Amino acid sequence: MLFGHTGKAHIIGITGPSGSGKSTLTGALAREYRRQDKTVAIIAIDPTSPFTHGAILGDRIRMQDLTSDPGVFIRSLATRGALGGLSAATNDVVNVMDAAGNDIVLVETVGAGQDEVEIAGTAHTTIVVNIPGAGDDMQAIKAGILEIADILVVNKADLPQAEAVFKQLHIYTDLQRHEGWDVPILKTVAHKEEGIAEVVEAVAKHWAYLQESGRLNDIRRQNARRELLSTAQAILMEEIVAAADGSLDDIAAQIAARETDPRSAAERLIKNARK
Amino acid sequence: MLFGHTGKAHIIGITGPSGSGKSTLTGALAREYRRQDKTVAIIAIDPTSPFTHGAILGDRIRMQDLTSDPGVFIRSLATRGALGGLSAATNDVVNVMDAAGNDIVLVETVGAGQDEVEIAGTAHTTIVVNIPGAGDDMQAIKAGILEIADILVVNKADLPQAEAVFKQLHIYTDLQRHEGWDVPILKTVAHKEEGIAEVVEAVAKHWAYLQESGRLNDIRRQNARRELLSTAQAILMEEIVAAADGSLDDIAAQIAARETDPRSAAERLIKNARK
Repeated sequence: MLFGHTGKAHIIGITGPSGSGKSTLTGALAREYRRQDKTVAIIAIDPTSPFTHGAILGDRIRMQDLTSDPGVFIRSLATRGALGGLSAATNDVVNVMDAAGNDIVLVETVGAGQDEVEIAGTAHTTIVVNIPGAGDDMQAIKAGILEIADILVVNKADLPQAEAVFKQLHIYTDLQRHEGWDVPILKTVAHKEEGIAEVVEAVAKHWAYLQESGRLNDIRRQNARRELLSTAQAILMEEIVAAADGSLDDIAAQIAARETDPRSAAERLIKNARK
Repeated sequence: MLFGHTGKAHIIGITGPSGSGKSTLTGALAREYRRQDKTVAIIAIDPTSPFTHGAILGDRIRMQDLTSDPGVFIRSLATRGALGGLSAATNDVVNVMDAAGNDIVLVETVGAGQDEVEIAGTAHTTIVVNIPGAGDDMQAIKAGILEIADILVVNKADLPQAEAVFKQLHIYTDLQRHEGWDVPILKTVAHKEEGIAEVVEAVAKHWAYLQESGRLNDIRRQNARRELLSTAQAILMEEIVAAADGSLDDIAAQIAARETDPRSAAERLIKNARK
């Protein structure tokens, strides 16, 4: 059984605004892990790409050297989650990559919406990538994404405004309450592979912290609870749709015509599925 | 019954990247509708704000003059959707606003993730706001968000790079296949209330198109189907959680310890709920 083989990989979430160089950083981290002889899976999530797949393909080009390495598995996830959502789909792929024996699973998300926050929630270590400038230095803070960071990275740190962002992030983290883990703020220039070893080192330190503090078990239990409920949800919804036997469109038309309401119709659907 | 009173409002989704001036545009549209003596509800969605609520509060400040108008209802939705998700929560609020007799319901989203795309999917008319410059002119196209637009707006059209974005959007829409509706591209300077009447006019034209073409009925049926399934899902998951009677954490711990797997545990949960 697949599930029995999971639970070994270190799952690392990498998120941040678009244009922050997440893909380049992800690629650089993968190369560093390969130098340490670790096997790596990269899962890139783009919740907006049910429509255009350009973004993902474009990003993946920066990882071309990795695609020929048998110790690296790269997969883009662009599935628009129906019932169950993108986080459930991601979880499945992460589990497969974990069970396949990868030491490191890098999950890269765009980091703007609820999905990304949830996906990051399933990671053991979350890296939030920030960039200098872009009009509003603290855009990331405004978006509330900093609060999920275990490690903060200022990428494109060779740009003149980098120091300002770095300082702002320090002010931000100083204001936070920590329990046993101080969020490090690291500078990288991912396209030149500068500062990457330091990030990998911070990730390893965080992993040790997670194990020693018991936080790793907490995260695993939270993930298990989430997976349990989403699996139950998927099973139940499959039953409902199967039992409706093609009548969903008719019922929807009745609701749209105000001949019935969603709650009554849903209760009938459920009753029907249990006959 | 609340549901029986819905189905009258024109639901308008407004989305686009952060910094595009969506809130200012939304406020300006609301003022224009009030001039036409229409009642307006504004629902602002920020899926990232389970963490920091600063963004929403900051944005709402731009709408202070509207808050004292009894013909305007403003509500921010920052709830991190548990099971059911943000789109279900939004749908509920939209229905309440619709049933309360508002002529116009403006739903403003950040427009970056799957949630926003889904929320936009429930609107009758979707306005996608673009901005000149910001490093990558076609960021919005890359994000795939243009494809949900019924009306495209170039806001901050007084900036020098506006013409370039305007042209790129024209090239983009010329490449699209249309069925009965040509997506208009309109220029606004929302903070000066310039171009707002034209947007309102385009929205009215789109409403007429939706009614004449039968598209309005299609959208209502799609929304009804979605609401039917999410209601069934909510009912079923409530049952499961209630029947588990506090044992979810124990089961999660067993899964985390690999003593059982999520599928078997979920099946047992369901069986137990049906006893």
